Amino acid sequence: MSDQRQKRLVVLTRLLTLEAGRQMSLTELSRKLNVAKSTLSEDLLLVKDALEEMGLGEIDSQVGASGGVTFRPAINHEAVRERLALFMKELTNADRLTPDGFLYVTDLLFSPRIIDGLGALLGERFRSLKVDHVATVETRGIPLALASARALMVDMVLLRRDHRLSEGSSLSINYLSGSSRHVQSMSLARRAPVRGGRVLFVDDFMQAGGTARAAQDLLGDFGAHVVGVGVLVATSQPQQKLVDEYSAIFEWTRSEEGMGEVRPSGWVRRTVKWEE
Amino acid sequence: MSDQRQKRLVVLTRLLTLEAGRQMSLTELSRKLNVAKSTLSEDLLLVKDALEEMGLGEIDSQVGASGGVTFRPAINHEAVRERLALFMKELTNADRLTPDGFLYVTDLLFSPRIIDGLGALLGERFRSLKVDHVATVETRGIPLALASARALMVDMVLLRRDHRLSEGSSLSINYLSGSSRHVQSMSLARRAPVRGGRVLFVDDFMQAGGTARAAQDLLGDFGAHVVGVGVLVATSQPQQKLVDEYSAIFEWTRSEEGMGEVRPSGWVRRTVKWEE
Repeated sequence: MSDQRQKRLVVLTRLLTLEAGRQMSLTELSRKLNVAKSTLSEDLLLVKDALEEMGLGEIDSQVGASGGVTFRPAINHEAVRERLALFMKELTNADRLTPDGFLYVTDLLFSPRIIDGLGALLGERFRSLKVDHVATVETRGIPLALASARALMVDMVLLRRDHRLSEGSSLSINYLSGSSRHVQSMSLARRAPVRGGRVLFVDDFMQAGGTARAAQDLLGDFGAHVVGVGVLVATSQPQQKLVDEYSAIFEWTRSEEGMGEVRPSGWVRRTVKWEE
Repeated sequence: MSDQRQKRLVVLTRLLTLEAGRQMSLTELSRKLNVAKSTLSEDLLLVKDALEEMGLGEIDSQVGASGGVTFRPAINHEAVRERLALFMKELTNADRLTPDGFLYVTDLLFSPRIIDGLGALLGERFRSLKVDHVATVETRGIPLALASARALMVDMVLLRRDHRLSEGSSLSINYLSGSSRHVQSMSLARRAPVRGGRVLFVDDFMQAGGTARAAQDLLGDFGAHVVGVGVLVATSQPQQKLVDEYSAIFEWTRSEEGMGEVRPSGWVRRTVKWEE
């Protein structure tokens, strides 16, 4: 009997954590576990205590007819520290420097093993803003934006670099890249379901912030409101960006010769208890 | 005491399932749970039995100095069926049809809630091929490719539509799109760490298969070998594709008037016990 309860607790833990952020109804859970709701409630209390005591996440209960329980995973500090260290170590690999002075990082940006944890961190940073969508402009910020969207349980809005026939009519914006002073453009399909929403804009890299500001303007034309900006790497110069506020995971201080220094930002170091 | 064991089982279940596919050492687990390895082994057996009996996944043990345990989640059939149904329902929304006869689906392709489960399904389909990388060509196949890569615990390789200065020297290929007979191109940075690897190519859409074949050729120039092709939607015509084998999640049979019919492929219907 005790063995049976123990197995049930294992299965309940797995079911609750399987789709983090999604509400599960008590009826559904008691059916799957084949127990009465009163027994299930006792089990839920034990699972809640065990997970919360270990800092592994929280279980919220919603009462009423549409009630149920929702698991909210905690940021896994150790895993995030591992990803931060791995990313920084990879960046300093001399083979990554191209003859034109760019850094080849596409493989890192498309590594779920590195980016998923960093996206979860960004999602946590912006959770209180109650965003409806995460937006990015193609292409290299997509994995980080998707990981943030997943953490926030919302969908992603893709801003295209040019207008695609396959997306129907679009709104486009041309803008000056804040750093290189080149004309760039981005567009969004009129059918994109973003109207009136609160949007988190995510990108891989920010220098002057021209792209983030253009995204803000374009999304504004859809009646959407950019309430937060999160990037993987921001350069320390220019200090004054074209957007008011942003959160970068890494700060990059360039030097005259070579790469300069890349380190986690203050909020990241505090959040995951980073020791240098 | 029993209460203590029960809580420990909850925490152990969460720790094991937190990073699916990653090996956890027994030393690390016994430290985190603050128990002797003998006790841990008993706990692991119970967790393994409970999860496997409910079809929630498997726990593999690796012996030896670098030993440990690895959790391999099972495909959640119910969740996948939900995603398949949601995707098909959304497709038939008349607002999605553009005046030029295209279907606006970008928002669906960038919805983690829909695509993650379908990527896991594709990953499972190709698990036995032991791939080293998942590749896609930008842009709309990226979320599905990332989800497949996550399920297979590998990184993604991004084929670009045009050559980017920021990626250093690249190899490019021009090809005729099999359906529209337009010249298309794709390129891959020489620095992409794909040499000699086994690659799963993933894309959102396949008609004649020209893109998949070009990716095969380009990756071949890197000494990489495309061992599988997976797509979200394949058209039933032309029946003869430019690649020998592929697995589509959906088959789309077009009709003269309107959308025609989209339904899950045979292997998908069998895998998730789909009932029409």
